[in-house]
Amino acid sequence: MRVKTPSESRTVMTDLVLPSETNPLNNLFGGELLARMDRAASIAARRHSRRITVTASVNHVAFNRAVPLGSVVTVEAAVSRAFTTSMEIFIDVWIEDRFTGERTKANEAIYTFVAVDDTGKPTEVPPLEPETDLEKERYAAALRRKQLSLVLAGKLKPADATELKALFLKD
Amino acid sequence: MRVKTPSESRTVMTDLVLPSETNPLNNLFGGELLARMDRAASIAARRHSRRITVTASVNHVAFNRAVPLGSVVTVEAAVSRAFTTSMEIFIDVWIEDRFTGERTKANEAIYTFVAVDDTGKPTEVPPLEPETDLEKERYAAALRRKQLSLVLAGKLKPADATELKALFLKD
Amino acid sequence: MRVKTPSESRTVMTDLVLPSETNPLNNLFGGELLARMDRAASIAARRHSRRITVTASVNHVAFNRAVPLGSVVTVEAAVSRAFTTSMEIFIDVWIEDRFTGERTKANEAIYTFVAVDDTGKPTEVPPLEPETDLEKERYAAALRRKQLSLVLAGKLKPADATELKALFLKD
Amino acid sequence: MRVKTPSESRTVMTDLVLPSETNPLNNLFGGELLARMDRAASIAARRHSRRITVTASVNHVAFNRAVPLGSVVTVEAAVSRAFTTSMEIFIDVWIEDRFTGERTKANEAIYTFVAVDDTGKPTEVPPLEPETDLEKERYAAALRRKQLSLVLAGKLKPADATELKALFLKD
Amino acid sequence: MRVKTPSESRTVMTDLVLPSETNPLNNLFGGELLARMDRAASIAARRHSRRITVTASVNHVAFNRAVPLGSVVTVEAAVSRAFTTSMEIFIDVWIEDRFTGERTKANEAIYTFVAVDDTGKPTEVPPLEPETDLEKERYAAALRRKQLSLVLAGKLKPADATELKALFLKD
Amino acid sequence: MRVKTPSESRTVMTDLVLPSETNPLNNLFGGELLARMDRAASIAARRHSRRITVTASVNHVAFNRAVPLGSVVTVEAAVSRAFTTSMEIFIDVWIEDRFTGERTKANEAIYTFVAVDDTGKPTEVPPLEPETDLEKERYAAALRRKQLSLVLAGKLKPADATELKALFLKD
Repeated sequence: MRVKTPSESRTVMTDLVLPSETNPLNNLFGGELLARMDRAASIAARRHSRRITVTASVNHVAFNRAVPLGSVVTVEAAVSRAFTTSMEIFIDVWIEDRFTGERTKANEAIYTFVAVDDTGKPTEVPPLEPETDLEKERYAAALRRKQLSLVLAGKLKPADATELKALFLKD
Repeated sequence: MRVKTPSESRTVMTDLVLPSETNPLNNLFGGELLARMDRAASIAARRHSRRITVTASVNHVAFNRAVPLGSVVTVEAAVSRAFTTSMEIFIDVWIEDRFTGERTKANEAIYTFVAVDDTGKPTEVPPLEPETDLEKERYAAALRRKQLSLVLAGKLKPADATELKALFLKD
Repeated sequence: MRVKTPSESRTVMTDLVLPSETNPLNNLFGGELLARMDRAASIAARRHSRRITVTASVNHVAFNRAVPLGSVVTVEAAVSRAFTTSMEIFIDVWIEDRFTGERTKANEAIYTFVAVDDTGKPTEVPPLEPETDLEKERYAAALRRKQLSLVLAGKLKPADATELKALFLKD
Repeated sequence: MRVKTPSESRTVMTDLVLPSETNPLNNLFGGELLARMDRAASIAARRHSRRITVTASVNHVAFNRAVPLGSVVTVEAAVSRAFTTSMEIFIDVWIEDRFTGERTKANEAIYTFVAVDDTGKPTEVPPLEPETDLEKERYAAALRRKQLSLVLAGKLKPADATELKALFLKD
Repeated sequence: MRVKTPSESRTVMTDLVLPSETNPLNNLFGGELLARMDRAASIAARRHSRRITVTASVNHVAFNRAVPLGSVVTVEAAVSRAFTTSMEIFIDVWIEDRFTGERTKANEAIYTFVAVDDTGKPTEVPPLEPETDLEKERYAAALRRKQLSLVLAGKLKPADATELKALFLKD
Repeated sequence: MRVKTPSESRTVMTDLVLPSETNPLNNLFGGELLARMDRAASIAARRHSRRITVTASVNHVAFNRAVPLGSVVTVEAAVSRAFTTSMEIFIDVWIEDRFTGERTKANEAIYTFVAVDDTGKPTEVPPLEPETDLEKERYAAALRRKQLSLVLAGKLKPADATELKALFLKD
């Protein structure tokens, strides 16, 4: 399978925040943002694998900034690392000030998708080769996240998660 | 503030999986489930705090079982630990077999909500006292998760996350 | 077929009232509440029968209390009586005050569902045995409601609706 | 207030049945039809009263015919009788065969709406004068239905519901 | 095929403007109105042809009047001319003042639909015979619009669009 | 006001086609595509003007290719010419083959938006300066389209539409 780059799967989903998606403070519901990010990430995963793709997991997501009603929200997703049948997708969320147009980072999230065939069986995906510095950094960190995920799922002993363990033994 | 129990915030949201919420394999989109869990969790957080509540973060979520079109899905959320202004909400998701009625666990997720006043400023919430064994176990683990969350956000040095560190140094 | 109790079909659907579901007074549209009750009732009917179930009729429904935007609404449905192929479902609707948490009854409704096979043909359902006093009272009243329904549909002569007739001849 | 006729409030809502509104047999959910009828009826009530109108009650509704996915459904609503502050709305539902264009009656329903001012307080509505034979028949029956509704709500003794009582004492 | 009249395809779709369909000025989004008109027009096209119909093109649409939240909007669509396999649909949009009930024209639009068989192949439709003066005027203008459409699509030389050319050479 | 380029307003909206948006042939409804294009175009208009923007008109739109259920659709909108208070927005729609990833043009559309202040009054927008050849070509054609639009609205005599007239007098 041909090696692919993150830019080949990059997916941009710009849309408005509508009244039916907001909480009593008139900000976008966290759950709606999670759903939009899932749709953008699933498209990125499909662009990388050219397969049906299903959400396997969502990494820790922090909601640092409220997204007010009427905002323009841009969700940008790209594959950050490919494993045998799964792909890690890194998602950046930006909002724009209605009047100045200033663009600020609202969120980051990391989802994992699995490529499957028509019967739902996992199937191989192409390898990924990062190009930019940011892509390389995210690619490297993806392995550490995968170990953490396996530890949390009880599928890897903490002591064997070498990359992760190192993190806790530093200084 | 009066101490509350998890059962005082327990929220049950049973509903069908509709055709507009499914992927090409006719299973519920991961993102739709994340949005339902967010709504159920926000109600549990409000029941505990009697305040407006906003999603602060979502812990790692794994999607282990597909949820087919037409399924009956039950999302059950309850506060698992209260901190000063934030609450950890533990969410269990069940699906029922249409014909046998057999109920199986489809997912678990952990969201954190913050209670805010009308201006969006964080405000204090009542303490939580777990009652059952499962509630006590989740209550204890919540502290470890909070440390992990702070480490991942770069707000706590891994070496100071004593509970978490212990986990990686065992055996 | 094994006799079942109302608690085996009890279905709890708690959810928020969103802006897209409200009228010009910022209260939940009557029609939206009817649709939610239908979904909850169809799940209760399916839990009792383990069949595909379709709405056969809706009894008289009165809307006594407005349900404001942002409310937490709990719809609770359970089979109140089973006939040969149809089930009467009794639905209670509760709303919670956002700040005090006080729970008040907003509505009651009664739907009838029929169990069908894959071709849409009515099919037998298990008998129901009420347990609590309230369940027994609803079970008894269901027969009177069925007669009224048949009278209104022109399928039973008023004079033959013995239970119902008695009601109008009292005092 | 000027007397109005049913044709002044007649409201026609023709629309398709979409995939997101159908049950596992690919027919329109009963609850979706109830919601559409509520919207059409609320427009008819507003056309008669020129006020904000809220659903007060729904009479017994029987679902006699399934409405398949892709059907064209026409909901036709008109005020059938006006009382002091409330209006009875009679609703006819038609479906068309996709190929022959044959139009068949799928449902009938009767909703009651109350006209309110901006604070939600009931306010007077114009009288209604029926014109056609069908309108006159529905107008006459509306009084009987109102008595039944009051009896069922415990606000009128069955023995005092003279019109209704007569129905049960015939033959 | 039997000749049909515009009144045989006339489709009336009356509905409310809901909060989820409005822009920051609390008026109906242009795009939502385009979508409603498309649904009404597709029903009119189906009523004329008794076939599956798909949108082929939308003529120039001007939005002259804002449609405020809570308005009652009536979309009225009817076939204005039938060609071999396509139909031009003329759509009138009316809004009603909530209090006076005054009905004003909000928009006009013209869509073209093609009748297709189950494989998506264009298929013949019945001829149309206009009856009223307005229907005759729209019927005549439809040919000019068709030429303009072909010119814009580069399928007809401007010099050969005789009806249209005349328009630009007058005075 | 600072002159802006088309790339400053370029808006990319990539999303899936969901089952609730498809017609009986399982293709995206024309009306849904019109609504998506309107949302994307309104964001482009806002990015250019930094004002509230409302749809003023939609140019002729042809639907040349069906967009099947499950497709990835990319709507790309950018301001093509700015007038005093209005902006012409050019929209390109692409679809991707699920398996080969081949991207094909599905549609083009042209919308006009007006910038307004909080009371809905038209307000000035910055001038636009095209950069690429395609942008320059679209910029030039926009004037011709504006004349055609004025002619069709009866606000400009055909004989005075000099640019447009030339088109019909060629060869």
